[in-house]
Amino acid sequence: MKITIFSILSALIFVFGALAFSVPFLPAVGGKPSKADKKNYLLRAKNFDGEKFHNLNLENESIMVKTKDIDPKRLSNKPEKPQSSLPVKFPGFIENPKNEDFTLTWFGHSTLLIQMHGMNILFDPVFSKRTSPVSWIGPKRFSSPTVKISELPKIDILILTHDHYDHLDYESIKKLSSKTTRFIVPLGVEAHLKKWKIPEEKITNMAWWEEININGLAITTTPAQHFSGRWITGGNATLWNSYVLKDEFRQIFESGDSGFGKHFEEIHGRFGDMDLALMECGQYNVRWPTIHSFPEESAQEAAILGAKIAMPIHWGAFVLSTNAWDDSILRFKKTAKELNLNMITPYLCETADLAKPEDYKAEWWKWL
Amino acid sequence: MKITIFSILSALIFVFGALAFSVPFLPAVGGKPSKADKKNYLLRAKNFDGEKFHNLNLENESIMVKTKDIDPKRLSNKPEKPQSSLPVKFPGFIENPKNEDFTLTWFGHSTLLIQMHGMNILFDPVFSKRTSPVSWIGPKRFSSPTVKISELPKIDILILTHDHYDHLDYESIKKLSSKTTRFIVPLGVEAHLKKWKIPEEKITNMAWWEEININGLAITTTPAQHFSGRWITGGNATLWNSYVLKDEFRQIFESGDSGFGKHFEEIHGRFGDMDLALMECGQYNVRWPTIHSFPEESAQEAAILGAKIAMPIHWGAFVLSTNAWDDSILRFKKTAKELNLNMITPYLCETADLAKPEDYKAEWWKWL
Repeated sequence: MKITIFSILSALIFVFGALAFSVPFLPAVGGKPSKADKKNYLLRAKNFDGEKFHNLNLENESIMVKTKDIDPKRLSNKPEKPQSSLPVKFPGFIENPKNEDFTLTWFGHSTLLIQMHGMNILFDPVFSKRTSPVSWIGPKRFSSPTVKISELPKIDILILTHDHYDHLDYESIKKLSSKTTRFIVPLGVEAHLKKWKIPEEKITNMAWWEEININGLAITTTPAQHFSGRWITGGNATLWNSYVLKDEFRQIFESGDSGFGKHFEEIHGRFGDMDLALMECGQYNVRWPTIHSFPEESAQEAAILGAKIAMPIHWGAFVLSTNAWDDSILRFKKTAKELNLNMITPYLCETADLAKPEDYKAEWWKWL
Repeated sequence: MKITIFSILSALIFVFGALAFSVPFLPAVGGKPSKADKKNYLLRAKNFDGEKFHNLNLENESIMVKTKDIDPKRLSNKPEKPQSSLPVKFPGFIENPKNEDFTLTWFGHSTLLIQMHGMNILFDPVFSKRTSPVSWIGPKRFSSPTVKISELPKIDILILTHDHYDHLDYESIKKLSSKTTRFIVPLGVEAHLKKWKIPEEKITNMAWWEEININGLAITTTPAQHFSGRWITGGNATLWNSYVLKDEFRQIFESGDSGFGKHFEEIHGRFGDMDLALMECGQYNVRWPTIHSFPEESAQEAAILGAKIAMPIHWGAFVLSTNAWDDSILRFKKTAKELNLNMITPYLCETADLAKPEDYKAEWWKWL
């Protein structure tokens, strides 16, 4: 008997050990910045210490808080996943968008296709069934896009906010590679893309407050309050960004993943009111209160940014915290009402013509 | 100049003439019953005159009524087609359904997959983009199914209500052929299927009030008030049916296409209350008042049938009349409320577990 238990334990240790040692070598885990890269980051990023990136304005850098509290503001007692499939739509991208056209298609979580300044701009594309280094284990998505990557239009700019699996998906990037002209990524994330054979000349890495101009569209990297990493070790070796996109018609904000912080005021101070704010709203937890915003904070952030249209993202596809799947939208909506925000909630995969935000206020999550 | 007009006219006449003569030879138009077939129909169908089928209980057989009136009961002034895509779901068929399982998946118009008596039963499958003899012209569907025919489960019974293009689709039947065990069709419709090389032994043609039993499920053909045909000439050479499906757990009714008539009372008289009534509700017109039901009539018919659950079909995919796309559902709903009907309106492509009809009452069409 003793031998049997010993055998089982040994086998388990072997399996976990083998996993722990082999996973870091899986291609999906990505690459590491070189010494030269790090020297470069030191010149460009105030919040880089030579090895790791840091959040500014945070007294305590540790992510986890020991607490048995339950979020007192939760509005929904539903299960973490919807019990039936979510309603979705088929997208209706504009085929040859003009500079003044302005559409948005949300594929769930933080995957967004924006048509702006005559270009197709794709944020954080995740079309895989799981957010994980491997395809057979890890959080499984509870909604499915109605289009495949092969059915997406040519992508002019692909923008990544940070390197977590629910934002940077190996399989999706591989499939998008040939139809994408340029990749905009936070400092360090280029190491993953290079490892995955994305041609170097297509990639631009960016530190906070840097700006580039693509065909007349100004893209500025702005701060976020989060963390990074694709494996247990080596965290925060790459940066986490938010973005402002600006042309002669409008300026929009994409929050990346971020806890509430002073940077929202700072961004508004530099840019003024946003025509659209895409606000991370989901996967928050009282145990990690600083690196994801609570829904009330997300709405408040949109108000600070002077958002003419506000839309909660980072929900509707994956369960990465312990809240009911609709808690984020119910709470964002409640606060948005109090703050008089013009909030939109297009269906999953619906192409919203943002000239008519009033057409995208269906409370489709209510019917589940 | 005279010559030019003459040339154009000649060309037009030639083109239309060529079309008129060639279309009947297109495979999609189907086949014709033989002399022997017709002799057989005479023995089986009271409403067959040797060449054509007839509606009973109708004083005037002509379909069209000359009127400039507009339907006084219309509730919606929306355009005939929705201005944005309809919300849809992904189906969740039960993989190995048991006899007591009871699900319904509506793909728009009259295309329905019923899981009942442990079998997959498919009604009027139309998965093509148009209802027409050819793929490049004809009424185009305004909603798309979220699954392809190849993703449907094995079909135990495929039931056709009549041979109009919006119910009998050549391309869909061809694709379904190999995965379908049996075809149940109105008298005459077997000629189309045979022309399309569906193995004869798979097909059962049925006259009104005939009954067959498949693995313990009784299928009875019941009357409808409609017409048939797949080309300008040779109309009403095939029959139009409604159906009752009955086992030890329940009995359900599928109306086919039908105007209001005495047959609903007759069917209720023979069977008693229905556990589910799938009611044609759409494509009605004051100019053809006898062969399609107005929505108020559809709801009334469900009440006559003693329907414990009522669901309007024949809408949500094609515009074949001149009403706003949501007029049918608004009016059915209004009358259903007055009649105290238990009405369900699952999303397009949603698999409804009919043990919980209260879960399928989302008014998803309201948000468009």
